Amino acid sequence: MSPVFLRKEQGIMFREMFENVRKSCPLIHNITNYVTVNDCANILLACGASPIMADDKDEAADITAICGGLNINIGTLNSSTIVSMFIAGKRANELNHPVVLDPVGAGASRLRTDTALRLLKEVKFTVIRGNISEVKTLASGSGTTKGVDADVADKVTEENLNDVIAFVKAFAERTGAVIAVTGATDIVADSKKAYCIRNGHPMMSSITGTGCQLSAMTAAFVTANPDHPLEAAAAAVSAMGFAGEVAHSRLTKMEGNSTYRNYIIDAIYNMTPEMLERGAKYEVR
Amino acid sequence: MSPVFLRKEQGIMFREMFENVRKSCPLIHNITNYVTVNDCANILLACGASPIMADDKDEAADITAICGGLNINIGTLNSSTIVSMFIAGKRANELNHPVVLDPVGAGASRLRTDTALRLLKEVKFTVIRGNISEVKTLASGSGTTKGVDADVADKVTEENLNDVIAFVKAFAERTGAVIAVTGATDIVADSKKAYCIRNGHPMMSSITGTGCQLSAMTAAFVTANPDHPLEAAAAAVSAMGFAGEVAHSRLTKMEGNSTYRNYIIDAIYNMTPEMLERGAKYEVR
Amino acid sequence: MSPVFLRKEQGIMFREMFENVRKSCPLIHNITNYVTVNDCANILLACGASPIMADDKDEAADITAICGGLNINIGTLNSSTIVSMFIAGKRANELNHPVVLDPVGAGASRLRTDTALRLLKEVKFTVIRGNISEVKTLASGSGTTKGVDADVADKVTEENLNDVIAFVKAFAERTGAVIAVTGATDIVADSKKAYCIRNGHPMMSSITGTGCQLSAMTAAFVTANPDHPLEAAAAAVSAMGFAGEVAHSRLTKMEGNSTYRNYIIDAIYNMTPEMLERGAKYEVR
Repeated sequence: MSPVFLRKEQGIMFREMFENVRKSCPLIHNITNYVTVNDCANILLACGASPIMADDKDEAADITAICGGLNINIGTLNSSTIVSMFIAGKRANELNHPVVLDPVGAGASRLRTDTALRLLKEVKFTVIRGNISEVKTLASGSGTTKGVDADVADKVTEENLNDVIAFVKAFAERTGAVIAVTGATDIVADSKKAYCIRNGHPMMSSITGTGCQLSAMTAAFVTANPDHPLEAAAAAVSAMGFAGEVAHSRLTKMEGNSTYRNYIIDAIYNMTPEMLERGAKYEVR
Repeated sequence: MSPVFLRKEQGIMFREMFENVRKSCPLIHNITNYVTVNDCANILLACGASPIMADDKDEAADITAICGGLNINIGTLNSSTIVSMFIAGKRANELNHPVVLDPVGAGASRLRTDTALRLLKEVKFTVIRGNISEVKTLASGSGTTKGVDADVADKVTEENLNDVIAFVKAFAERTGAVIAVTGATDIVADSKKAYCIRNGHPMMSSITGTGCQLSAMTAAFVTANPDHPLEAAAAAVSAMGFAGEVAHSRLTKMEGNSTYRNYIIDAIYNMTPEMLERGAKYEVR
Repeated sequence: MSPVFLRKEQGIMFREMFENVRKSCPLIHNITNYVTVNDCANILLACGASPIMADDKDEAADITAICGGLNINIGTLNSSTIVSMFIAGKRANELNHPVVLDPVGAGASRLRTDTALRLLKEVKFTVIRGNISEVKTLASGSGTTKGVDADVADKVTEENLNDVIAFVKAFAERTGAVIAVTGATDIVADSKKAYCIRNGHPMMSSITGTGCQLSAMTAAFVTANPDHPLEAAAAAVSAMGFAGEVAHSRLTKMEGNSTYRNYIIDAIYNMTPEMLERGAKYEVR
């Protein structure tokens, strides 16, 4: 499928990235949606981090300050929580805490697009993680995202992969953030280097919140590895995809997406850094 | 138990209703409660639809516009989300999108009763789905619902079934909506025709949100079958009940309501339209 | 591990406490966080109670009035829900309904600490349940809780157990509430008597919301046993811990924290009062 797998030579980094999460148990402040928030909390615990959810403007800065990292997810943004996102984001920047943005549904409404764009302008993000439609919306300033899933027209294929990588690197350059575009093939890149990650399983899209969970977990990985945001984000993306593979292999005939959701979190819980190193499938372009 | 089962002759409709959901993958806008929202999203995905949750007034109309149908659930209504329910409902009406109302706890507080009654006045609903106490509250304008469960005094029995059907048909006539009253026996009716559905399992009442999940799924079914709201709603009700039966048959001795919740969603995920046709138990009155 | 187990002589109380929940099916009003709310609802159903979640100020008093007990959890408090907490708490006091406080994260932000302290001043609580750091924050008026988990410096050990019990009894005396401090060893005390409960499993801390679930279940137990708040709270704490043990014994090699969450709720669902009596591990000091 992919030309060159460099796992053997470079996979050791993913192992270390994960080890540092388990060792440092980073506390992550999440301002996130109420749809998938429980799964985000449980996957943070599963990977060795500790979650705190707090979205009122009167405590956003306080909570950010006691945490190691911040995860902002606009999945069910509202006029109150938007204010808190800016307060927390700016406070995290002052404290040099890593900040992850998950621009859920950017392009699906003006409120989402505008909020995400304003966040990009006023907060410095360490990682931006979304599907290709959401990221294109952020890059172009407008979009036609169909709900919270990627638009078919935007699909990343083997044919357009190099073009997409170039686009992602350019957006990383412009924002100074690591950009993680997830889908059938995941691309995690800074301005110079892109990881193309081929872990995961198509059934992951039949569960709500695998993207949200990944963003939360990415915040834990970059918090535990402050000097390696690119590799930390790539390791988180690979871990999530690998968990999707492991979980899928456990499914029996009568099990469906709800059980699969549990199995994915279980797989993160039981994953060792060594297992991630062996299971990671990626190349660098 | 029931006099005449017409499944053989009419069941084909349920199969078609479900096939159309799987084929068209309708995008459903949910303004719903934060208790069962994750299960609502996962059951929508399980049946082949796609969920988006968005409840801020500044994006409610935008999100409704990109979706095919709307599901309004007042389970944890508040002063902000109530505004969004009206905006989204009216926008959906303008666009001729199907709209489902789940009047959770109508009768339990003046706020719930009044909001549900105002919604009925200002928004045209395709389907109203609730338990018998909630629906009686809407029909009479006041109620004594005990929390979010049906009152014992309101219970539907074989003895009062015809009376309840007449009541439901009359309320359908008055509102122009398909009315789905769910309980041990489910009644789904328009002004002329009632489906009495006898799928389901008593243990379903030991899980929070089976009703909410059904309302979300009903929105998907009526969106995918715009010309057959009655049959689409009946098919959704039957599918939910049948999933409850299938899921119950999987339960082992140490499994309880939490696992049962997962198994029900799994059962929808694995249910084919043909399985629904074979498993549906109903009569028309 | 513990000097004297009085289970044989006193365990019968826990059995009765649980029996009364199953018999009376108390309806519990929850103003709680959106992270663990679904699990709170399902564990209430599992133990035989019935949940209603409602947090808008315009219905808080109405909902409190139709319920038997109230559970206030500040896990994701905000300016709107704080108002409702006071309205509901005062209404419950007027009606002599039991009220439980879960001061999630008190000490982690000024908003949480101040809200919890104000609640203590204006509402009479039947039970206050938290980890040792949260309870110390309430007792001292300030704190340094690290997120939503207990601080290591506050850890309850066999060495400081008697000191902690004395502290808990004094705080119970001052507040007039039963105080439940949960951790590796749980202490449930009024001003005169303390239950040291040694049920539970360390893996419970790898799931979000076991504390929240316990607070909800405690509200059910004290509502069903109005004359025995101390024993009712102790029985709820023991039941939760015992469920953690039973659930853990079911876990297979690939199962992790997400499955464990389901198994704990399942264990409550399948627990009989007799099983609780046999499984409860505690001493009175």
